Amino acid sequence: MKNNLFEHIPAELAEEFFETLQESGAVKIERIVSRGHATPDGEWYDQPWDEWVVLLSGSAVLEFAGERTPVTLCAGDYLLLPSGCVHRVAWTEPDVDTLWLAVHFNR
Amino acid sequence: MKNNLFEHIPAELAEEFFETLQESGAVKIERIVSRGHATPDGEWYDQPWDEWVVLLSGSAVLEFAGERTPVTLCAGDYLLLPSGCVHRVAWTEPDVDTLWLAVHFNR
Repeated sequence: MKNNLFEHIPAELAEEFFETLQESGAVKIERIVSRGHATPDGEWYDQPWDEWVVLLSGSAVLEFAGERTPVTLCAGDYLLLPSGCVHRVAWTEPDVDTLWLAVHFNR
Repeated sequence: MKNNLFEHIPAELAEEFFETLQESGAVKIERIVSRGHATPDGEWYDQPWDEWVVLLSGSAVLEFAGERTPVTLCAGDYLLLPSGCVHRVAWTEPDVDTLWLAVHFNR
């Protein structure tokens, strides 16, 4: 009945690991594990829904299209990525698991 | 723009601390800090919506109305409390912060 966010992570991660933990019509809860991965150069996330995301281990840098300063995230940091907030993961810490919990939802 | 889940927790907690981090029509994301607190004797949560909850620090025991065995939660443990799943917090670890992140949503 219970599971653990920090378990059952593949030993080898050729790419970022995305896993849907819970999904209903209104909301999707996802864990993401990065191990030095970043969004491929020139690619951006441009989502027509809101995403609330918290980083639970490791560290990362998010960058935003336009003039906004990159944001460094450490364990416990969370932020809202509103619909239309064009962003990418510029960097994640190498050699450790950067674990994200993302809640995607429609307003 | 960013905040941290583990910061800005009141020094004194006479009762459990509930804080809404994000809310829209479909979803409410809440952090809860318990410091040895439990649901008052004889009280139960009986919610007409689903709740997905993860424990991020400390530890706790949830109990369920009826015959189900109590569930002990440690850091990283998560579970779904479906609508109508009558439950209470029987115990949280004394002297440390048990931090919960709860996502309440309607199916």
